[in-house]
Amino acid sequence: MKYHFIREEIPYTGDELSNHWIYRNYGILGDAVVAFVGPCEVDQEKMVDLEDILNDDYIYSKKMLNFIVEIFGISLQEGVLLQRLFSAIIEDRINMLMPEAGIRRRGDDLFYRETQKLSVSICTVSPTSILIHTGLNIDAAGAPVEAAGLVSDLDIPDVESLAVACMRTLAEEWEDIRLSCCKVKAVL
Amino acid sequence: MKYHFIREEIPYTGDELSNHWIYRNYGILGDAVVAFVGPCEVDQEKMVDLEDILNDDYIYSKKMLNFIVEIFGISLQEGVLLQRLFSAIIEDRINMLMPEAGIRRRGDDLFYRETQKLSVSICTVSPTSILIHTGLNIDAAGAPVEAAGLVSDLDIPDVESLAVACMRTLAEEWEDIRLSCCKVKAVL
Amino acid sequence: MKYHFIREEIPYTGDELSNHWIYRNYGILGDAVVAFVGPCEVDQEKMVDLEDILNDDYIYSKKMLNFIVEIFGISLQEGVLLQRLFSAIIEDRINMLMPEAGIRRRGDDLFYRETQKLSVSICTVSPTSILIHTGLNIDAAGAPVEAAGLVSDLDIPDVESLAVACMRTLAEEWEDIRLSCCKVKAVL
Amino acid sequence: MKYHFIREEIPYTGDELSNHWIYRNYGILGDAVVAFVGPCEVDQEKMVDLEDILNDDYIYSKKMLNFIVEIFGISLQEGVLLQRLFSAIIEDRINMLMPEAGIRRRGDDLFYRETQKLSVSICTVSPTSILIHTGLNIDAAGAPVEAAGLVSDLDIPDVESLAVACMRTLAEEWEDIRLSCCKVKAVL
Amino acid sequence: MKYHFIREEIPYTGDELSNHWIYRNYGILGDAVVAFVGPCEVDQEKMVDLEDILNDDYIYSKKMLNFIVEIFGISLQEGVLLQRLFSAIIEDRINMLMPEAGIRRRGDDLFYRETQKLSVSICTVSPTSILIHTGLNIDAAGAPVEAAGLVSDLDIPDVESLAVACMRTLAEEWEDIRLSCCKVKAVL
Amino acid sequence: MKYHFIREEIPYTGDELSNHWIYRNYGILGDAVVAFVGPCEVDQEKMVDLEDILNDDYIYSKKMLNFIVEIFGISLQEGVLLQRLFSAIIEDRINMLMPEAGIRRRGDDLFYRETQKLSVSICTVSPTSILIHTGLNIDAAGAPVEAAGLVSDLDIPDVESLAVACMRTLAEEWEDIRLSCCKVKAVL
Repeated sequence: MKYHFIREEIPYTGDELSNHWIYRNYGILGDAVVAFVGPCEVDQEKMVDLEDILNDDYIYSKKMLNFIVEIFGISLQEGVLLQRLFSAIIEDRINMLMPEAGIRRRGDDLFYRETQKLSVSICTVSPTSILIHTGLNIDAAGAPVEAAGLVSDLDIPDVESLAVACMRTLAEEWEDIRLSCCKVKAVL
Repeated sequence: MKYHFIREEIPYTGDELSNHWIYRNYGILGDAVVAFVGPCEVDQEKMVDLEDILNDDYIYSKKMLNFIVEIFGISLQEGVLLQRLFSAIIEDRINMLMPEAGIRRRGDDLFYRETQKLSVSICTVSPTSILIHTGLNIDAAGAPVEAAGLVSDLDIPDVESLAVACMRTLAEEWEDIRLSCCKVKAVL
Repeated sequence: MKYHFIREEIPYTGDELSNHWIYRNYGILGDAVVAFVGPCEVDQEKMVDLEDILNDDYIYSKKMLNFIVEIFGISLQEGVLLQRLFSAIIEDRINMLMPEAGIRRRGDDLFYRETQKLSVSICTVSPTSILIHTGLNIDAAGAPVEAAGLVSDLDIPDVESLAVACMRTLAEEWEDIRLSCCKVKAVL
Repeated sequence: MKYHFIREEIPYTGDELSNHWIYRNYGILGDAVVAFVGPCEVDQEKMVDLEDILNDDYIYSKKMLNFIVEIFGISLQEGVLLQRLFSAIIEDRINMLMPEAGIRRRGDDLFYRETQKLSVSICTVSPTSILIHTGLNIDAAGAPVEAAGLVSDLDIPDVESLAVACMRTLAEEWEDIRLSCCKVKAVL
Repeated sequence: MKYHFIREEIPYTGDELSNHWIYRNYGILGDAVVAFVGPCEVDQEKMVDLEDILNDDYIYSKKMLNFIVEIFGISLQEGVLLQRLFSAIIEDRINMLMPEAGIRRRGDDLFYRETQKLSVSICTVSPTSILIHTGLNIDAAGAPVEAAGLVSDLDIPDVESLAVACMRTLAEEWEDIRLSCCKVKAVL
Repeated sequence: MKYHFIREEIPYTGDELSNHWIYRNYGILGDAVVAFVGPCEVDQEKMVDLEDILNDDYIYSKKMLNFIVEIFGISLQEGVLLQRLFSAIIEDRINMLMPEAGIRRRGDDLFYRETQKLSVSICTVSPTSILIHTGLNIDAAGAPVEAAGLVSDLDIPDVESLAVACMRTLAEEWEDIRLSCCKVKAVL
């Protein structure tokens, strides 16, 4: 899995969660994760979580650190497992930076002080890949739910370093997972 | 996924990591996780991690909290993803109990104070299932590497409560993962 | 697999055979089967059986008992196997109610007196699931082929009870099939 | 799927439920079903249904019509679906021959007069295939449970014709299932 | 796999690379390969190789021998393997006809005299199948790259015989591959 | 896929076609191909091609260039496709070295002058991988069938260079196949 931090600001609208978006825009072919900063606002017709749609939820963040992951040749269920592992990786990384933050994961969500939502995340399927969007609030002002932001609440100003560390760990762990499948003896 | 804490002490020898061991011994049919306490010592011919075998490592713990997970109908790669997610769940649970513990996950291993190994873990495949063993040292005395134990170092005496909390979270998250696959719209 | 009988009359037009139709309309998440009564008329552009389209067949029933099944995470071939098993379940249930009916299954079709078509059925794939529509004529008047109906020919007035019995048996058998995969020893 | 009736009498011991048994003994390569008549007695160490083993059940029939099915390249779950469809095919065939028999299927079992067990059946996995054994009592004397036999109770003396008809229907239906997957339009 | 040479001239526009195109137009149901002669020109919005699109390549041949392969129930990766094997089959067939031609395969491409491109090829996925288009230049005049043609350069006038030989070999090899999976003992 | 030429002479006995043989003996983890020279003689109980066993064929070569390929996480059918593609790669490489050799592939076999068998090959499955053995006669003296050898008949003395070239091409093509799956747009 290759990884890349995109320095230009890009609004996340939901269109970015599409087959080959990374390859078409950044020329990175194959399994990859990219990150970028930008406001996040997803129109309902571009939302992919039907539960959110049925609940009339909306997805908004004034400024967000966005990750897009695309993996080819795996099932949706594997994608959801990887999505949650990625949330655990981000949780660990923030807790290492700020041990007192006490970020906790519940499913694919990360919370600050138990109730302040730090993240949004979704995993879905395209015709040839699995796609994950995970976004971390940078500035939580105006969020539709009780929320926290990396800068506004957690005092982590260097989101690029955080993003790169999370992406590198994900890429290394994905490689390690694949190799783990190559060194175990089966049992009866 | 059903879960069950076995109150009798059982040595972990490697034989427990086998197809239907849970069903044959505890009558629990289908996806399941069980936990039990006992010493852990695995003869080399029963070890399943070839890297350990090639390195002449051995697996020993004076007293360990052992988890056995068996899941049917998934691939080894999904099993390894779930194994690591389970390690993340245990990490979170201990850190919630003991915020100052600062347990960190690296792959399928958990560490206390960066270098003291708290756990062993392996995921392998049987003819009809995926099997995971994760063991947490209770008493780290005599461990073959620098290690920490739940009681000897972390002061978590109630391992049964810890085990049940970890198993319940795993079972709930597994159910949640499956349902997450049923509520997303595909994208193009 | 959850099951639900929908009491309001709904025309079956082909639109109902779509990803998450059950969840979006009835809030039932995950593998599910629902049934409802209504006229059945499918425009050619909504037909999914290409053989029917090539033959210029059309699908019409004045009044039909319709079943929609949605299963996630299985292949189309598994879906077709399940579709046919469901036809066998319906056949058995009617033959239990009316032993002299002598309903016979040929593939996914059910016949009364060898030649009178009682049912239509199709199994197809959506981006995240397998979908089955099976419809049983209630009133066979006006059918495009020689046909029989539950009320018009078989004298089974209580279609709701029939529907619930068929759905419950399908749900139980699906659960039983999954557990059957968890209790067999592999052979060499 | 090829099919073949073996005219020599062969005792069913459980060894026949093994990878390539049909090819090694009858030279039939690929997906196949064969049938033969013989007594059925399976030692516990050759039984593959763990539920039977845990219950200390034993499998015995004085004289049985045995089917062995081997299918390559499908999952165990598909195999179990096909096993049950085969039971439905046998049920239909007997009910066509003897409409008053009123044979009923419950899961993979067939019953005569609701309570008399006509069949045993199991589906399991070998390293390269799915294997099904379905046996129909010919003479039910001495069965370990309340049982019925094709000759002793149902008066169907020509078991070869019955076997061939069931195997031909299974082979045709399997081909039809595969083609059904090739002619449906996907839906959204 | 069935095969069929279509005698009428058909321009290849990219629309032919679609789910059930063979069945809808020629009534051939299931795995199949067909061939036809015609000019080849694919508008960019119908191109499926994103690398070509990003490079602003275009696909044009004055006269081409086109093959369309459709296989159901396999993965894209299997499709790409089969695509390349088909290129190897064509290479062999031309080299048998014209030993001095020295056609060489590089990936899915065939070259004459190392640098003259004889073919275009792509493998993609539809909702229920894998689709392959392989085209061989008949007349290389006007090609967008250095190219060779079966007639213009290789002096192989009977493209129908060549096409039929290649399709028959592909169909036989596909059958042979499937049977090869049914006759090997697994190893430990 | 990593590749490695083993300089020591090793007899091929069939034991080398086993799960993790490459990793256990050469420390190469993951998808890999290795080559070595040695006599080839496989006892019947170690043969994996049941057709050979049923025909009482035996596998012998006085001196052979042996390739062992191990790929994790693919199906047997993908393995067989890759095996044949590897035979096509070897064919091409020899024909490049010796254009007049006119080596031809039929399935997984390579022939010299239409009838002299140059190779043996098998693809099978282990509990966690697909394994391929392909052997090329170096010295064809004493072969059980009409055969040719790289040195005895084809005058290719530098088998190491040939082996490395074939392995490198296989490794590159495997990588290229995986990337090809990441750059195609799906079609309808």
